[in-house]
Amino acid sequence: MGWQKTVLDKLAHTFQIRNKLLRQGLAECLGTLILVMFGCGAVAQVVLSGGSHGHFLTVNLAFGFAATLGILVCGQVSGGHLNPAVTFALCLLGRDKWRKFPVYFLFQTIGSFFGAAIIFAEYHDAMYDFAGETNELRVIGDNATAGIFATYPNPHLTPLNGFFDQVIGTAALIVCILAIVDPYNNPIPQGLEAFTVGFSVLIIGLSMGFNSGYAVNPARDFGPRLFTAMAGWGGEVFTAGNCWFLIPFFAPFLGSIIGVVVYQLMVGWHVEGEARDKKNKAREEVLRLNDVTTKE
Amino acid sequence: MGWQKTVLDKLAHTFQIRNKLLRQGLAECLGTLILVMFGCGAVAQVVLSGGSHGHFLTVNLAFGFAATLGILVCGQVSGGHLNPAVTFALCLLGRDKWRKFPVYFLFQTIGSFFGAAIIFAEYHDAMYDFAGETNELRVIGDNATAGIFATYPNPHLTPLNGFFDQVIGTAALIVCILAIVDPYNNPIPQGLEAFTVGFSVLIIGLSMGFNSGYAVNPARDFGPRLFTAMAGWGGEVFTAGNCWFLIPFFAPFLGSIIGVVVYQLMVGWHVEGEARDKKNKAREEVLRLNDVTTKE
Amino acid sequence: MGWQKTVLDKLAHTFQIRNKLLRQGLAECLGTLILVMFGCGAVAQVVLSGGSHGHFLTVNLAFGFAATLGILVCGQVSGGHLNPAVTFALCLLGRDKWRKFPVYFLFQTIGSFFGAAIIFAEYHDAMYDFAGETNELRVIGDNATAGIFATYPNPHLTPLNGFFDQVIGTAALIVCILAIVDPYNNPIPQGLEAFTVGFSVLIIGLSMGFNSGYAVNPARDFGPRLFTAMAGWGGEVFTAGNCWFLIPFFAPFLGSIIGVVVYQLMVGWHVEGEARDKKNKAREEVLRLNDVTTKE
Amino acid sequence: MGWQKTVLDKLAHTFQIRNKLLRQGLAECLGTLILVMFGCGAVAQVVLSGGSHGHFLTVNLAFGFAATLGILVCGQVSGGHLNPAVTFALCLLGRDKWRKFPVYFLFQTIGSFFGAAIIFAEYHDAMYDFAGETNELRVIGDNATAGIFATYPNPHLTPLNGFFDQVIGTAALIVCILAIVDPYNNPIPQGLEAFTVGFSVLIIGLSMGFNSGYAVNPARDFGPRLFTAMAGWGGEVFTAGNCWFLIPFFAPFLGSIIGVVVYQLMVGWHVEGEARDKKNKAREEVLRLNDVTTKE
Repeated sequence: MGWQKTVLDKLAHTFQIRNKLLRQGLAECLGTLILVMFGCGAVAQVVLSGGSHGHFLTVNLAFGFAATLGILVCGQVSGGHLNPAVTFALCLLGRDKWRKFPVYFLFQTIGSFFGAAIIFAEYHDAMYDFAGETNELRVIGDNATAGIFATYPNPHLTPLNGFFDQVIGTAALIVCILAIVDPYNNPIPQGLEAFTVGFSVLIIGLSMGFNSGYAVNPARDFGPRLFTAMAGWGGEVFTAGNCWFLIPFFAPFLGSIIGVVVYQLMVGWHVEGEARDKKNKAREEVLRLNDVTTKE
Repeated sequence: MGWQKTVLDKLAHTFQIRNKLLRQGLAECLGTLILVMFGCGAVAQVVLSGGSHGHFLTVNLAFGFAATLGILVCGQVSGGHLNPAVTFALCLLGRDKWRKFPVYFLFQTIGSFFGAAIIFAEYHDAMYDFAGETNELRVIGDNATAGIFATYPNPHLTPLNGFFDQVIGTAALIVCILAIVDPYNNPIPQGLEAFTVGFSVLIIGLSMGFNSGYAVNPARDFGPRLFTAMAGWGGEVFTAGNCWFLIPFFAPFLGSIIGVVVYQLMVGWHVEGEARDKKNKAREEVLRLNDVTTKE
Repeated sequence: MGWQKTVLDKLAHTFQIRNKLLRQGLAECLGTLILVMFGCGAVAQVVLSGGSHGHFLTVNLAFGFAATLGILVCGQVSGGHLNPAVTFALCLLGRDKWRKFPVYFLFQTIGSFFGAAIIFAEYHDAMYDFAGETNELRVIGDNATAGIFATYPNPHLTPLNGFFDQVIGTAALIVCILAIVDPYNNPIPQGLEAFTVGFSVLIIGLSMGFNSGYAVNPARDFGPRLFTAMAGWGGEVFTAGNCWFLIPFFAPFLGSIIGVVVYQLMVGWHVEGEARDKKNKAREEVLRLNDVTTKE
Repeated sequence: MGWQKTVLDKLAHTFQIRNKLLRQGLAECLGTLILVMFGCGAVAQVVLSGGSHGHFLTVNLAFGFAATLGILVCGQVSGGHLNPAVTFALCLLGRDKWRKFPVYFLFQTIGSFFGAAIIFAEYHDAMYDFAGETNELRVIGDNATAGIFATYPNPHLTPLNGFFDQVIGTAALIVCILAIVDPYNNPIPQGLEAFTVGFSVLIIGLSMGFNSGYAVNPARDFGPRLFTAMAGWGGEVFTAGNCWFLIPFFAPFLGSIIGVVVYQLMVGWHVEGEARDKKNKAREEVLRLNDVTTKE
């Protein structure tokens, strides 16, 4: 065992990264990889099995608990955002530094890309089996499989409603997350944040998933889309649905702003203000007492 | 970053509301908005997708976890009632002041109204697509969509049974909530109340949802109903089912009274009494000892 | 408010029961009522809606979470057994006094009876609507509704296998419960016992529910069966399936014994023994030290 | 009661095992028995009921919560691995001694074997009823029931993809488990590890269950397979699918290695290194202060 211990220690020293931002990026990368691997894996299971091994609820459950597990894996290191729209909201509120935003965004997208790649490897045979005789991976149509990885709009959806869909979904997510992590509100026991965020993601899928599959996360949508473009589905993944991919890439940030404003207006600034009022009162009390003491 | 901090502080000061009851009302409003947005959103997803993107269980899960998230968002500020029948029960037991009741009721109804409005925006295209060629939003019949927002009785239901349905459902909810928040019983760890209430709502949907969709909450039913009346479904939302809307508006309060009486009779007054007996005994012991000391 | 407080205090004094065993019985009664009301309610919803408002999974979820809520409501007062087989196991291990057993059994059965009665009231119209034109409540056959309340064996089941079904199911339940409440094992945080027991009940339904509907609880099966006999289904509820009702009434106690033996043999006595060994060692150490001191 | 206490104490003394490794093995045996009993029971329920009493989601839920309950039952004694691949990963990282590995592997396999036997007893009648007129237990084909106990590949799966399937699934499981139990990361409250591992197992079933039924556990697959070979299904259980049984027996260990490497590279060694850096800094500080003191 002494030999094993020496090797392990040597490995630990060799691979330790001391740059904090890079370490956080790597952690976000693994967390988002887990989110996309499990989430898109569940979509793949439903699509490829023709519904015998799952249905829309299992996809919702998978994305929800995948968010939980992703946050658990990286949360202590990077905060467990897994979503550029969440990073954006926390930067807006001054709780994270703006220079984190591009780094997190990049690593989240890389994680999503590799999460999709793992699912492609996992279901390689099933995907070609599903594609039928032509052995062609299709973006739209009967045996389309691109929807396993990235989101595509339902035929009934106009671009305007699609835009609102992503804005509303992200705003709802951000309101829930802000309530969960608000230091002045702290409604849940330490350590259960990841589970509660998972429930939020689950419920968004249960109630806002019919229009276009609730991306509400630019990295989760763009990374896998890029992967499909490279892995055989081709450039159609970007042009399908009148360049739909632009909406889940940009709209979530507007949703993020709205979520921040709504939560702060309705709850956040009041609990923050109450805490400040208490602190000020205590300080004034101290000053008054000092004053009294001085006069005496 | 200094600039951002200044702006944030200024905003926080500007929008801070110091009236406690108003702040509580606003928090209840946001909490109930979340409850109705996610809950009715799940109904919309099931109805509009024709069952491909959900089923009755997903509606139950959504209302349950929506209650959890709604309570988490506003619970620290307002207690997270989200339901006038709950506020009523707590006022009955003297745990909240009666003047809270009309304020909470109003803000809960406003929150429900806007929650329904958000789902109308979210599924605007899908709703008109579902309505078919006539482009008409219908209250009853084949392509009816009013049931997404408010509850309507199943054809088998007589008004009397419908009344009992709401009374029983609310009483069951109140018994569970009273057990969860009883200060003399406290069966669960601090911070898990919201989750447990969510499970209660979920289970009421699983077992009492077939008659009329388990409103058991006057605000959750009336706010969205008002919205549908204004958004294009017309006055039929009030007349349908022999003015069904009156039952989920009034019956829950009777259910609330029954729930309070049952819980207090079977558990509440005994645990309270035991705590009081212990306190009295301790006080008598002190008096007796004093007596002994005095005599000596 | 002063007036309200006086009334409440008076009520609390008037209805307080000071006999502990009676209080525990009442609490068990309410807890079991909740278990049966929600559990059988979910069966009713599935059966009466013809599967549109639930499926077997929703019944499993309902019984599981109903157990959780039932335990939460009465656990602090009575321990939250809800099941004579659980009371029996704890008496066997000497953790509860034997005189509790008949009292708990009686009140658990009464609670089950009234839980069934509430569901009969809740779904009165739906039940007669489902019965069809004859308006007759049937125990077996196409429009049978007796299975909503009590369990009946699947046609493939022989009495011997049915007996094993109940023994195995109860033994599995008891092993899980003993692990959860074992004072020498204590694997879960204080306050989460009710949730974990709920998961145990859920999983027994998921994996052992096909033979006869996993009663694994004499009170949960007998109380509702008695109710159906009185409410219009007639004596056939006792004779159906070759007097099937005897099996879920007696077999769980044998399962309880087996569960106790298996858990104690495989885990319980070893963790208990380890704790005892540690204590003995500490005592011997003290004795040895005393000895040394004395000799000196 | 004195008599009962004496008997219980005597039993406790008689059956107490003092060899720690044997005790741990017994605990693992019971834990794995619970995992397989509930998990395979759920598969049996789905297969034998033809889908009326469950679907693929219920199997996923059952395996997930069965893992939770299995860990709760034995976790305090043996760590609750329930899976040789998990034991292997912890030995690789030097957190458990290598001599535990064969003992745990053996007892986990024995537990799986008996878990399968219990399900065979539980559903004996249903299985022969399902087998049809020939009364023959079949491994493949229309009325096959061997898939209730062990995993068999889906027709679309090539051996290579099957191998990757098991490697990816196990690696994903190991990454999640390492994050949950990492002493330098500890993301969840004490006592909730079992629940979180259960969610990991659930989600692997939701997203990676379509290829071959996500064994990801050599003991869980081999024990029940051995049982079926002996209980009437014959040697075909080993030859079916080109000796498929070899893949879930060996591939998980490779997955285990990959999971360890990925987690340690992306998160583990960095949090460990950070903790070490802090400790070293504190020690240097002490040395520097000593130095200063000495010089003075």
